[in-house]
Amino acid sequence: MEHLTDEAAMDLAVAAALEGVRGANPLVGAVLTAPDGQLLAVGRHRGAGTLHAEADALAAWAALRETDPQAAAVDPAACTLHVTLEPCDHTGRTGPCTGAVRAAGIGRLVYAVADPTGTSGGGAQTLRAAGLDVSGPTGHAGSLALTDRWRRARATGRPFVTAHLAQSLDGCAAAADGTSQWITSPASRAHAHAVRGRVDAIVVGTGTVLADDPRLTARDDDGSLASVQPVPVVMGHRRIPAGAALRGHPALAAGEEPLHLRSHDPAEVLAAIAAHPGPWPHGRGGCEHLLIEGGPTVLAAWIAADLVDELHVYTAPTFLGAGLPAVSGLAVDTLAHAVRWTPDSAEGGPVRPLGPDTWTHLRPATAAGKE
Amino acid sequence: MEHLTDEAAMDLAVAAALEGVRGANPLVGAVLTAPDGQLLAVGRHRGAGTLHAEADALAAWAALRETDPQAAAVDPAACTLHVTLEPCDHTGRTGPCTGAVRAAGIGRLVYAVADPTGTSGGGAQTLRAAGLDVSGPTGHAGSLALTDRWRRARATGRPFVTAHLAQSLDGCAAAADGTSQWITSPASRAHAHAVRGRVDAIVVGTGTVLADDPRLTARDDDGSLASVQPVPVVMGHRRIPAGAALRGHPALAAGEEPLHLRSHDPAEVLAAIAAHPGPWPHGRGGCEHLLIEGGPTVLAAWIAADLVDELHVYTAPTFLGAGLPAVSGLAVDTLAHAVRWTPDSAEGGPVRPLGPDTWTHLRPATAAGKE
Repeated sequence: MEHLTDEAAMDLAVAAALEGVRGANPLVGAVLTAPDGQLLAVGRHRGAGTLHAEADALAAWAALRETDPQAAAVDPAACTLHVTLEPCDHTGRTGPCTGAVRAAGIGRLVYAVADPTGTSGGGAQTLRAAGLDVSGPTGHAGSLALTDRWRRARATGRPFVTAHLAQSLDGCAAAADGTSQWITSPASRAHAHAVRGRVDAIVVGTGTVLADDPRLTARDDDGSLASVQPVPVVMGHRRIPAGAALRGHPALAAGEEPLHLRSHDPAEVLAAIAAHPGPWPHGRGGCEHLLIEGGPTVLAAWIAADLVDELHVYTAPTFLGAGLPAVSGLAVDTLAHAVRWTPDSAEGGPVRPLGPDTWTHLRPATAAGKE
Repeated sequence: MEHLTDEAAMDLAVAAALEGVRGANPLVGAVLTAPDGQLLAVGRHRGAGTLHAEADALAAWAALRETDPQAAAVDPAACTLHVTLEPCDHTGRTGPCTGAVRAAGIGRLVYAVADPTGTSGGGAQTLRAAGLDVSGPTGHAGSLALTDRWRRARATGRPFVTAHLAQSLDGCAAAADGTSQWITSPASRAHAHAVRGRVDAIVVGTGTVLADDPRLTARDDDGSLASVQPVPVVMGHRRIPAGAALRGHPALAAGEEPLHLRSHDPAEVLAAIAAHPGPWPHGRGGCEHLLIEGGPTVLAAWIAADLVDELHVYTAPTFLGAGLPAVSGLAVDTLAHAVRWTPDSAEGGPVRPLGPDTWTHLRPATAAGKE
C-alpha cells in the first residue's frame, strides 16, 4: 500500500496529466488520497469534452467504492484531492469541478497552480467558502512546468502554438533540387495528420504554398479526409495562386477565399488570428490552437519570436547533403545563444521511433526561466 | 509453455543477440528447444572474452537442469540448438563452440548464416562429421541483417567501422563562431566515451585537430581515464601541431609520434590501418574496430564511401542557426539519391533519450540490398 506525501501525490498527478496531449486544453492530473496518504484514485483530463481531471479521479473512486467495501468505508470528508491546476468554477462542455468536489464530500483540496482564465478561475475561493480545507497555489514545480506555456497563451489571450519539422538527419526539409515528398515515413505523416486534426488552424508561408502546393487537410490513416478539418491560414506578401490546392480545402465554403495575412511578423499574424471570429473547428471563443507547418523562414520567425509552445520533430534516417534546411534564418552567433528546448514527456514522448524515423517532442527551455 | 517453430526460435535468437553491442565481435544469439519446440534456454554473446552464444545457451540449460527435474529428464540428443551464425570451430579466448555442442550431446543444429572467417569457419562440417543433424545456412533474414556489415568487414579483412555525430536539431556541430563545447549533454558524452572504450582506434581529420584540439581519450563517468584506451589516428595532409593535446594520449609512448595517414581517401586510410601491426587495445590480429569522430568532411567521406557500418547520432534539443554542419560535402542532388540508414535495435536502440538529448542508433540501409 502506498502512503503519499502531498508532494508525492502531486508528482503522481503530474505523471497522470502527461499521458495526455497538448493543445487548447491544459494538461491536468488529480490524485485522491486517504488521511494516511494511501492512494485512492488517479484522474486526468483526456481531451476536449471529456471529464476534467478532478471529476475523472472522483469517478474512478466512486467506481471502486461500488465493488470494494474497504474503499466504501473511507470517509470522503477525511480525504484529500490533489490537483495540478486550480479546479474550474464554471460550466463549459462539462460541469464545474467545484460542484463535483462538493458533491463527493471531499474535505481537503491541495492545488498547485492558480487557474489564469477569467471564466473558470475562482474555484479555490468557492471551495473555501463551502468549508473545505484548501491549500494552494503550492507552486509545485512539476505542475508549473506542465502548463507554463498554456498559461502564457491564456494570459495573453492567444492560441496555443504547436510547430512541426519533418527533416533528414542533417536538418534538411528537401533535397537540393527541391524534392521533398516524402522525406519522412508514413508513420510520421500519420502522426502529423493526427496533430492537424486537433488544431483550429494551420499556418504556412506563401513560399510553401508556391513551392509545395500543400492541401493542408487532416487525413485519417487510410488517407481519407478526417471528419474535423483545421482552417488553412497563409502568411506573407506573395499572392496565393488561383489553382492552389488549399483553395479546395474542405474548411472553405465554395468560392471562399483562404485567410491570407499579409505579414511576416508572427506576433501580427497571431493577433489577427486571435481576433478572427472563425468559425474554428475546436475553439469555442476563438482560435485556441495553431499549428505552424513552415516553410523554413516561417518556422524560424515563430521560433525566434518565442511563440512556439510545443515542437514535434520528425527525423528520417537519411542524409540530404546540401539540401534545403528545415529551419532557416535563426540568428545564433555562438553556442551560448543557441535556441534551447527541453524534452516534453507528454503524448508518450520525449522520443519514440515512428517507423524508421525518430519523433522528438519538445517544449521551449525558456519557459521555466520566465515563470 | 512455448512451442516454437524453427523460424520462431531463430527470431528469438536474433532478439537475444540484439541485446549486445556492435563491434569487432558479431552479434550472435542461440536458442535451445525440446523436440516439441518447447523453449529450453536462450543465449547470446556478451562481448569479447565471454562465452559465445551457443555455450551461453548450453550453460543456461545446464544450470536449469540442476534445479528442475523436468528439464533434467529431457534427452539432449532429441534437442535442437538454433544459432544465428555458424558455430566456430577454433580455440580463441574461449573454446570452440563445436566442442561445447558435442559435449552437451545435442542432436540437432540449425544455423542461419555461414561463418565468413577463415580461422573459425567449418563448424557445421565438423558437427555433421560428428553425427549431428545439421541444417544451414538457412538464410534467415533477421540473422542475415544482424551481421551483414560485420561479415562484409570480415570478408574484406578490414575493421568494423563506427561513426558518431554530436549535433543540434538543425544538424550543426558548432555555432557560427566555432563554439561547440558542449552541444550535447553529459549523458550523451558518457555514451560516446563508452563507445571510445571499446574500439581499437579513433580517426579524426587534421581539421578537427587544428580546430578543436581533442584529447581522443576514453573516460569513465567520473572523468578519469578509462583503463583501456583507443589509439588516436589522424588523416589528412596538414601537420599535427607540436602542442596538440593528442600528442599526450596515454596510448602513445613518451615521444612517440601519433599515427598520421596523409590521405583524404577513407579506403586508403582503412587499408593502412588494417595493415598496421599495432599494438591495438582489443584486436588480436590487428585493428578490428574503428571509430570515426569527424570533422564534417571526414564523416561525409566515410559515409559517401559506404564504409560506415554503424552510426550513433546524439542530437541536442537546440537550434544553432547558421552554424557549422556536422556532416559536410555529401553529394546528394535529389531525394531519390538520399543516403539512407535503417534503425538499429542493438544496444537498446534505435532511439532513446540521453539526458535532454536524443540518441539514434543506425546502420546503413544499403547493406540488405547488397546481400
